[in-house]
Amino acid sequence: MEKVQLYDTTLRDGMQGENLFFSPEDKVKIAKRLDDAGIHYIEGGWPGSNPGAAHFFELAKKIAFKQAKVAAFGATRRPGISCDKDGNLAALIDSGAPVITIFGKSWDLHVNEIMDNSLEENLKMIRESVAYLLDQGREVMYDAEHFFDGYKANPSYALDTLEAALDGGTRTLVLCDTNGGSLPCEIEEIIRSVMEHFKDRPGICYGIHTHNDCAMAVANAVNAVHVGATLVQGTINGYGERCGNADLTAIIPILAVKMKKDCMSEDNLKKLLNLSRFVSETANMPPVNSRPFVGKSAFAHKGGVHVSAIMKNPKAYEHMDPVKVGNVRRVLVSEQSGKSNIIYKAEELGVDLGDDAVKQRQIVASIKDLEDDGFEFDAAEGSLKLIMEKLTEQYKSYFDLESFRVVVEKDKEKPCYSHAMIKIRVGKTTEITSAEGDGPVSALDNALRKALSAMYPQINDMHLVDFKVRVIDGSDGTDAKVRVLIESRDTDNIFSTIGVSEDIIEASWQALSDSFQYKLSLEHQTPS
Amino acid sequence: MEKVQLYDTTLRDGMQGENLFFSPEDKVKIAKRLDDAGIHYIEGGWPGSNPGAAHFFELAKKIAFKQAKVAAFGATRRPGISCDKDGNLAALIDSGAPVITIFGKSWDLHVNEIMDNSLEENLKMIRESVAYLLDQGREVMYDAEHFFDGYKANPSYALDTLEAALDGGTRTLVLCDTNGGSLPCEIEEIIRSVMEHFKDRPGICYGIHTHNDCAMAVANAVNAVHVGATLVQGTINGYGERCGNADLTAIIPILAVKMKKDCMSEDNLKKLLNLSRFVSETANMPPVNSRPFVGKSAFAHKGGVHVSAIMKNPKAYEHMDPVKVGNVRRVLVSEQSGKSNIIYKAEELGVDLGDDAVKQRQIVASIKDLEDDGFEFDAAEGSLKLIMEKLTEQYKSYFDLESFRVVVEKDKEKPCYSHAMIKIRVGKTTEITSAEGDGPVSALDNALRKALSAMYPQINDMHLVDFKVRVIDGSDGTDAKVRVLIESRDTDNIFSTIGVSEDIIEASWQALSDSFQYKLSLEHQTPS
Repeated sequence: MEKVQLYDTTLRDGMQGENLFFSPEDKVKIAKRLDDAGIHYIEGGWPGSNPGAAHFFELAKKIAFKQAKVAAFGATRRPGISCDKDGNLAALIDSGAPVITIFGKSWDLHVNEIMDNSLEENLKMIRESVAYLLDQGREVMYDAEHFFDGYKANPSYALDTLEAALDGGTRTLVLCDTNGGSLPCEIEEIIRSVMEHFKDRPGICYGIHTHNDCAMAVANAVNAVHVGATLVQGTINGYGERCGNADLTAIIPILAVKMKKDCMSEDNLKKLLNLSRFVSETANMPPVNSRPFVGKSAFAHKGGVHVSAIMKNPKAYEHMDPVKVGNVRRVLVSEQSGKSNIIYKAEELGVDLGDDAVKQRQIVASIKDLEDDGFEFDAAEGSLKLIMEKLTEQYKSYFDLESFRVVVEKDKEKPCYSHAMIKIRVGKTTEITSAEGDGPVSALDNALRKALSAMYPQINDMHLVDFKVRVIDGSDGTDAKVRVLIESRDTDNIFSTIGVSEDIIEASWQALSDSFQYKLSLEHQTPS
Repeated sequence: MEKVQLYDTTLRDGMQGENLFFSPEDKVKIAKRLDDAGIHYIEGGWPGSNPGAAHFFELAKKIAFKQAKVAAFGATRRPGISCDKDGNLAALIDSGAPVITIFGKSWDLHVNEIMDNSLEENLKMIRESVAYLLDQGREVMYDAEHFFDGYKANPSYALDTLEAALDGGTRTLVLCDTNGGSLPCEIEEIIRSVMEHFKDRPGICYGIHTHNDCAMAVANAVNAVHVGATLVQGTINGYGERCGNADLTAIIPILAVKMKKDCMSEDNLKKLLNLSRFVSETANMPPVNSRPFVGKSAFAHKGGVHVSAIMKNPKAYEHMDPVKVGNVRRVLVSEQSGKSNIIYKAEELGVDLGDDAVKQRQIVASIKDLEDDGFEFDAAEGSLKLIMEKLTEQYKSYFDLESFRVVVEKDKEKPCYSHAMIKIRVGKTTEITSAEGDGPVSALDNALRKALSAMYPQINDMHLVDFKVRVIDGSDGTDAKVRVLIESRDTDNIFSTIGVSEDIIEASWQALSDSFQYKLSLEHQTPS
């Protein structure tokens, strides 16, 4: 099996993504997880560009990584000075990182128009910077920025820049599609030409760095490996500037499982889903359900035909066993679904529907009635579990509502003001609490939380992450039936609940109350 | 320029996506936008599978499309019966759709293991079903389900299934990577083999249908065109089961701009961004900022180096001019982008922004600020018009709010009870009314209607037809900012209004109050 090295740049290029920020401490946590999953290189930042990046390298020195090497990123020296006078190179050395990745300009347009530099001086900058850093005893990689655009514009100059890096002494050339505009066939053809050009210089490791502006970052990276690249740069979840970088959570299983490359062990591959969730959680970005391999929907089946086929042979509608990347098959219960979906789903949720076929049919019928009423359980597995428990008398209620009252007031142009009063019962105890909120549901959420937190302190680590309302039947104006979907999360779980009613507050209450009941039922399962 | 036909299946395969649902009326709205953008085929649903799909085809018959042809989707006849006894084929014919796309099994595993059918009978089903539908005078396309997996398992049988479809009389063979597990190099190689195999049968149109399970749906579709496919199936925003279908909003600009294929006019290409937004709004799915070409971040530049380079020459960090797809470059420097859109829009809505360039820039800036706050005016032209009128001092208020109070009460298992009191002023008259409703917004709607109807009887022919709520920033639970979109209609018009606030009632009030103001402003224009 041919070895492919994985180079993660979530902490550097990934952080260029809009709304993305990691503190140095966040970076340390992520770096440990990347190392634990068997990533070979972890690029921690550009130490010359900001103090936060430099701080991470200070912290990283104290970590005993299992195998990962930490890399610092920076530019070649500035034009017209010697390397030992360049602050950026000094910062790279001071970072103490065992690997230094420097980028240089491959595209004559950048050298001439943007840098106002000469083509010769640019080559000298590349050669001298690489040699200078190698002299410091570091492993040096060369990132050829805009290589593919540069090659398309002026192939011989683009090749000269690589030659300069090789002359400086590095053996790792990373070809970058910085603007993300290249197509797989172009990437393939250009890499082949480069390899042909340097075929007399043995031992070169070709790396690939792609962006997703044409929705092709993964395909371009995989195609590069297909023609001989042996190092892949990317980010977890494809985070990065504009449309993002190449998503390692997709590239890794493709290389390991489909192309049989030696890049990550089977055991580590199973950590991919959690790694993806951990990074999105640390970035405070909602996980993308449709994300290949690691998304919640990546192995979710909706159509009844698909589900019954899957039960006969999963290969029928699944390109890979989800377990390999730590994911699970999910069967969605929807309008179109049949009995087989519901029985399968009950098993998955750990609810025993019993063996009585008549009783089973009644349960299925009850769930289908609720679906006809507008409950969309494929988006609300938390509520589906509670309802299955209710239908099979396995439901335990952790609290009961006595009453609530919500008041919303508005005066002229002043914003609305909402407050809620709630009375609940837990066993023999009655709690009456009152709270304000940004809107009636928020006030109700706060009042319920206040009422329950004395008895169930574990609810404090749960919070609502998404709240969606939709009119089911658009024909009756504000009297129409609405569906409220709530997504909640605690430290370990994400769960969704649903409510349906003509009244938005009633529907919200159902979903809200289910989310608390579901959370409390989860806590109950873990040994205390 | 070689022609490539675009086949949209957002309304059928796209709706298989988790949490995705379109009513027949939603589908009509989307179909009109697809047609307006120059999509060649619009697949509306599987009429045999559910009543909602059939209803769309009823509605579609009444639409005069500019160029798009509507397609109905379904399976080949069942084993062991004749075509005229097959309910599914009958439903396809009854749909009245001018194009029928039927899918058949290419993979022997499906025929044998899942269908428990014979390989021979499967070929007959394909041949006879195609012939039967052609006899009805329809254009018939053949979707070869699981073609690439089937070819990998048993190439000669997979080719036999295509041969059966050709023998049935169709000339359009759509090769499907149903499970989304194929790599670009496999797709390329297999399509070349198929083309070689049928090289003596002239006039075959090859289509491609891909899924994104390996993050390669776009690359696979584009690669197929690269080797000679001339029809591409996909969905807007890549919606679809599991990881989604091939995203047409990426494929189209790649084909048109980068590969110079004749698939969409330059003018229509500029509608892509709005089409993407419209479909995500209708689906009530948050638009993905990092989506290639049409995402909010697709041409957003964060780094200062990038920004100054971009100002010297946009090509430096941009693979394409964003204007071509209706998008805009976003940089930290203040920008005039979108100004022309807004001026154009004002003209369309009949608001005179005046000739003063300074004033115009202020108006554009104010609207852009509101957009940054979460107002999405593309889906709320009613509110956009009112805001433009306010900014140009042309706004006439038909009523003013003094105050309102809404109370929601719930007792144990009884449903919620809502009532509202409202005090409004029209000129010198003050009205205080009170009303109940199914929920707080409904109560408020009823109370406002009651207060206004004495003075403005014309509001009685207006009613609310859709009400959508979405959390804009999913990270803050019930405290997060929500956007409420209301669609209203009277006898002649449909108009949409918007409100944004941390408080759902406040946001609802903004949208509700705008809908009444807008309605009254309309009435004012018509001679009475």
